[in-house]
Amino acid sequence: MTTTQPLPSWRGGAAKTAVLDFVRSVSEPGEAFVPAMERIATFDNDGTLWCEKPMYPQADFLIRRWAEQVKADPTLATQQPWKAVAEGDRSWLASALDHVPELIKGVTQAYDGITTGAFEQAVREFFDTATHPTLGTSYTGVAFRPMRELIDLLTANDFAVYICSAGGRDFVRVVSEEMYGIPRERVIGSGTTLEFRAGDVYRTKGIEQPIDDGPGKPVHIWTRTGRKPLLAGGNADGDADMLASARFALLLRHDDADREFAYDTGAEKALAAAGEHGWTVVSMKHDFGTIF
Amino acid sequence: MTTTQPLPSWRGGAAKTAVLDFVRSVSEPGEAFVPAMERIATFDNDGTLWCEKPMYPQADFLIRRWAEQVKADPTLATQQPWKAVAEGDRSWLASALDHVPELIKGVTQAYDGITTGAFEQAVREFFDTATHPTLGTSYTGVAFRPMRELIDLLTANDFAVYICSAGGRDFVRVVSEEMYGIPRERVIGSGTTLEFRAGDVYRTKGIEQPIDDGPGKPVHIWTRTGRKPLLAGGNADGDADMLASARFALLLRHDDADREFAYDTGAEKALAAAGEHGWTVVSMKHDFGTIF
Repeated sequence: MTTTQPLPSWRGGAAKTAVLDFVRSVSEPGEAFVPAMERIATFDNDGTLWCEKPMYPQADFLIRRWAEQVKADPTLATQQPWKAVAEGDRSWLASALDHVPELIKGVTQAYDGITTGAFEQAVREFFDTATHPTLGTSYTGVAFRPMRELIDLLTANDFAVYICSAGGRDFVRVVSEEMYGIPRERVIGSGTTLEFRAGDVYRTKGIEQPIDDGPGKPVHIWTRTGRKPLLAGGNADGDADMLASARFALLLRHDDADREFAYDTGAEKALAAAGEHGWTVVSMKHDFGTIF
Repeated sequence: MTTTQPLPSWRGGAAKTAVLDFVRSVSEPGEAFVPAMERIATFDNDGTLWCEKPMYPQADFLIRRWAEQVKADPTLATQQPWKAVAEGDRSWLASALDHVPELIKGVTQAYDGITTGAFEQAVREFFDTATHPTLGTSYTGVAFRPMRELIDLLTANDFAVYICSAGGRDFVRVVSEEMYGIPRERVIGSGTTLEFRAGDVYRTKGIEQPIDDGPGKPVHIWTRTGRKPLLAGGNADGDADMLASARFALLLRHDDADREFAYDTGAEKALAAAGEHGWTVVSMKHDFGTIF
């Protein structure tokens, strides 16, 4: 194992020790050794690799787009989610995940009919110009440094590291290399349906099924890699199936209101499963010396 | 470029020169240079990397399975494709692609409800025991040696080489490493639908959409890599959209009845497009010194 001061932003403790011991055990000769080709790690993105509060970065991206759309076509304000944006209805937007049909309509109509290349430009512009509402940095600055160090440690030990996000694959891909050192072909995630015509790939109005959340995560990981993860990291209930499919599971707990956010909502089942299955729970408050 | 006697099984000629010139042009400093991270190559499998006559290897695999199924449950013989297998109706089987609903039923019911791991074992057993009907070797011996050399040349020049097969991703994956040096995570292809339950990934009765053929190929390549192929190779009409999306397109022509098979059926549109767009047509008869 590459051991030159691994995980410098992590504080010493049971979590750091468990991670280092596991990586060493599969990388060095011994009973638990795993050939390099089979060392796959998968990480959820929102809340695991980057800050997901007060809203998902992709939600901010979409809300800005819906605002543009309703400005260009005010008749859109009669329907959700454009109505909420036009009226500044933060409460509807905050509960958008409870309005799945409207949310899907908004997501797919935000950028339908354009090429994947044109979509990438829109995403690039968002990351180049938007500022996180509370952290005051651009969204490329909201990755958790200790998690980036973990990715680097795994990569140095010949793991192939994938992102496995319930969010948009083609959104995360644009910044995965610069933010995490993860090349775009190793980003697994949800997507709109696509079609090839006139020599290019276009976004269409559907959502690829299954989405990359809950039981869809191990399915996506299989279709993309042909393997189960050797190590997986997540932070929420939607990650529990992925974590259950991995040899080593890491659950990041958001318990640091001073430096990030403190919330267990949406992670109750995952936290219970962690206790039951012996997953390694990482406390942002106690195990991370530095967060950003 | 790695140049130590590249492509030894290829005969000198325009095709070999075009391939070598292209690989050199994108790998060495100059106007056409492409960063290593963006060097993606995609190859169709059936008829491009391995022999697809007198039938697709996967068709042989399926027919053997349907025979097992009809033996275990003779009532299956009332419906296609089991009826054709029970009656030895080679003509129906040879035209199975004209009977899509029955074919899909047969494909999805051949191995539905089992884990991807159990399916892999069945595929492994097929490759370990079955013999190609005319070549007299196991199916792991039906890869085209010059194409394997091309894969090795591309890999040596930092291309990420993917298989992009209309056939089964989870079928090809089992042998991609040993036959082509292509790891399983770089096999793109069609698949049945999957579900995660009880800690494992199970095959279910649907077909993932779109299938990885025709316009589905560039879509699959995008979802898997986030890129368009820099170099693509195919042999049939179903590869034409993938070839059209690549910077350098190679079309393998089956014109050697003595050493392999001679047929243009199913490649008429691709051959016409090759002439129109200047794709490199590789004649198995003239450009390959050795085939297997």
